[in-house]
Amino acid sequence: MNTAPLMDLAHALDIARESRAQAESDFFDHIRIPSVSALTRHAGDCRRAAENLVNHFQRMGMASRLIEGDGHPTVLAEWKGAPGKPMLTIYGHYDVQPPDPIDLWQSPPFEPTVREGRVFGRGAEDSKGNHFACLKGVEYAFATGGPPINLRFLIEGEEEGGGTVLPRYLEREASNLKTDYVMIDDGGFTVPERPNLITALRGMIYTEVEVTGSAVDLHSGSFGGNSPNPFNTLAHIIAGLKSREGHVNIPGFYEAVAAPSEEELGSWEKLGMTEAGLVATIGSPALEGEPDQSMMMRAYARPTLDVHGIMGGFTDEGTKTVIPSRATAKISMRLVPNQVPEAVYTSFATFCESLRTPGTRVAVRQIGPPSPPVQCGVDHPGARAAAAAFEKVWGVPVLYVRAGSSIPVSVDFQRALGAPMVITGFGQADAGAHGPNESMDLEHFHRGAEFMLHFMAELARV
Amino acid sequence: MNTAPLMDLAHALDIARESRAQAESDFFDHIRIPSVSALTRHAGDCRRAAENLVNHFQRMGMASRLIEGDGHPTVLAEWKGAPGKPMLTIYGHYDVQPPDPIDLWQSPPFEPTVREGRVFGRGAEDSKGNHFACLKGVEYAFATGGPPINLRFLIEGEEEGGGTVLPRYLEREASNLKTDYVMIDDGGFTVPERPNLITALRGMIYTEVEVTGSAVDLHSGSFGGNSPNPFNTLAHIIAGLKSREGHVNIPGFYEAVAAPSEEELGSWEKLGMTEAGLVATIGSPALEGEPDQSMMMRAYARPTLDVHGIMGGFTDEGTKTVIPSRATAKISMRLVPNQVPEAVYTSFATFCESLRTPGTRVAVRQIGPPSPPVQCGVDHPGARAAAAAFEKVWGVPVLYVRAGSSIPVSVDFQRALGAPMVITGFGQADAGAHGPNESMDLEHFHRGAEFMLHFMAELARV
Repeated sequence: MNTAPLMDLAHALDIARESRAQAESDFFDHIRIPSVSALTRHAGDCRRAAENLVNHFQRMGMASRLIEGDGHPTVLAEWKGAPGKPMLTIYGHYDVQPPDPIDLWQSPPFEPTVREGRVFGRGAEDSKGNHFACLKGVEYAFATGGPPINLRFLIEGEEEGGGTVLPRYLEREASNLKTDYVMIDDGGFTVPERPNLITALRGMIYTEVEVTGSAVDLHSGSFGGNSPNPFNTLAHIIAGLKSREGHVNIPGFYEAVAAPSEEELGSWEKLGMTEAGLVATIGSPALEGEPDQSMMMRAYARPTLDVHGIMGGFTDEGTKTVIPSRATAKISMRLVPNQVPEAVYTSFATFCESLRTPGTRVAVRQIGPPSPPVQCGVDHPGARAAAAAFEKVWGVPVLYVRAGSSIPVSVDFQRALGAPMVITGFGQADAGAHGPNESMDLEHFHRGAEFMLHFMAELARV
Repeated sequence: MNTAPLMDLAHALDIARESRAQAESDFFDHIRIPSVSALTRHAGDCRRAAENLVNHFQRMGMASRLIEGDGHPTVLAEWKGAPGKPMLTIYGHYDVQPPDPIDLWQSPPFEPTVREGRVFGRGAEDSKGNHFACLKGVEYAFATGGPPINLRFLIEGEEEGGGTVLPRYLEREASNLKTDYVMIDDGGFTVPERPNLITALRGMIYTEVEVTGSAVDLHSGSFGGNSPNPFNTLAHIIAGLKSREGHVNIPGFYEAVAAPSEEELGSWEKLGMTEAGLVATIGSPALEGEPDQSMMMRAYARPTLDVHGIMGGFTDEGTKTVIPSRATAKISMRLVPNQVPEAVYTSFATFCESLRTPGTRVAVRQIGPPSPPVQCGVDHPGARAAAAAFEKVWGVPVLYVRAGSSIPVSVDFQRALGAPMVITGFGQADAGAHGPNESMDLEHFHRGAEFMLHFMAELARV
């Protein structure tokens, strides 16, 4: 009893190929709206970009409206015309980074300009090109009988600055937003010509370790030799936390770390990243890191610990012979599946305290909520459908990559909806997001729409 | 063939006791001149204070004039009327600290006011009271036949801010300033009723240790696990330099350290300083320091190493996940007799480099010239004469103490003149130099003049 409308895939793909000029025209109009979420003077432009999307969704046949909150609105569009079929929720963001430094743009950032098959403009890839390609794919599905699955778009306007409208909506409406899969459609290729799926994101714990010694700052001439120096304590704590080579010594730190899958490991080899290449990128004499782990493992699959700054004492030019009363270090840890932030933090705090030197007190606190690692996996039907769709469009197998940093919204989705995730994007490897002359390869954009058609078709068969 | 005039000590002491009212009147006039060297608007007052001293010296019979230079003048006064007898050079400073915070003074800082036997005023102790007592003693000597030794006063006007007039004069005129002893007359008692001689001052090396990793600041999500972090290097260097307990690990660091004399050790016991008392003063849970050394040894006789600040990365509120390209630590060492700054610095720099962690570069530099430790000793005739004079006036043996910090001018004297030094002062233990309500006990002031008479008499017998 399948009452779902049946998109004609071949026909939809034909339409996609025939509609490229119109798709570009609509896409470019979207880029023209300077929806810079960080700048108050562009608040109206953010709303215009959101309304532009609502109009597109409504015209193709989706229920669409703005979700309002304390910030820029989120675009919601839904299609529930395929009962019995999976629900796919697609995430994107219509807000863009400020275009600075303006001087370095070869063409105006909000006047999309095509050169050598790419459209240049702020947001062309990050992430207007990404979600607009999906939107176009869905539009072609509606033109040939309607999408073969249920769909929901949530396109926010606060990604580049961090906002609360979408996270609070997800938390509030979780029970009404049940979904089978979530696609985070943001970013792009890691290496040329190879579409990829992100299989895991690192989580984070950000801490401050504060050490107190004397009641007030002291003169090192009068008190040196007897007064505890909080910098001495911090040095012993930090040196104790991580070996000279880069192995983290916190008890149990690596215990829960999940090994990457064979598929992931195979993909990483194909990325062509070498230690020599990374040394050249970083510009240091050599790398630092766990001695018994490969560079790729350390970049993708291993948790890390870094100090970001140390406050206290005298940091101006010249000399001052102060023994400060207190000194504080900012220390963060990047976590990987299946580490549990709370357990790691507890072990970290206890270990810091155990490294205390005589005469000082140690206080450890978290700055901001911890962000858990995100595990997407490669073996759920959503990931398999996306991989198959990519291979059909690009003609090569996808690569499985990981991200060293977190995507906060993916944690929000994971927490609220708990559905398997597909994290991917269509931008070419050198799209230049956040920088001047950001661009989207138009072939990638159009293939993104075709990917969407195949992806829906694959999911409809699940 | 002793042609020296012979002061009549007993008569001079009588005059001292009879002239107390006049001595106070002259002393208070000296305090009234607000010779704050740090404030440009008081430059004229500094000159007035200097000229006031020149007038006093000339009236009593000493050749006196101002030494000019790039700053406030130094007062020079000389008496060479005791051929064959030792030359004593007395150092003092007529400039004073700013009186802030004014609100906390019970009487105006430049209107000397007597309460409970003390005169309150800025500079009453530091160091107008000190050198004015010496001046008065010499005046009484002139009144009874003339000083029995040769004398030179050098009273500068730039002690509180650091200046070049006196140091350059000493360097330039060293060959004309030959002297048998130098008395640095600044400061006062450490414990009540016990005059003291300072037997050694610590020297100092102030350094910056700069660590460079990546070419530019990096994101810890993308590069954490592989990029060297200069804070990691600095932590291992600092933790390597000094043990958790406070033992400095620089090779050879303690090798040249001279043990204090039995006389010094005996004196330190009498100071009544306890570990519990120091913990209370410092306000930390406990002390940090070389485990095999006593608190007094660590305060007076042992070299130290302290970190004063660490620059680099992110130190504002909140979070930023940066791996900085470079980070720098300010690290100083306090040196004791007979450490040689150049040798210690070389060993320090080599050791820092050896503690480098993978993937970083380490650069060590000195900030400012090193200051060598100063050894006054207790067994030269000048120190013995001063000790005998103090005992005659106060009726108790002197205590031998050390200073944890350096007195730069003492290094200038040591370098230029190379004569044995007596470092002492007459102020009572709670004189409050640099703070509000600075005071000089008038009994101490008058005894200072009597000390000067005895000191000259003792030196004349050498």
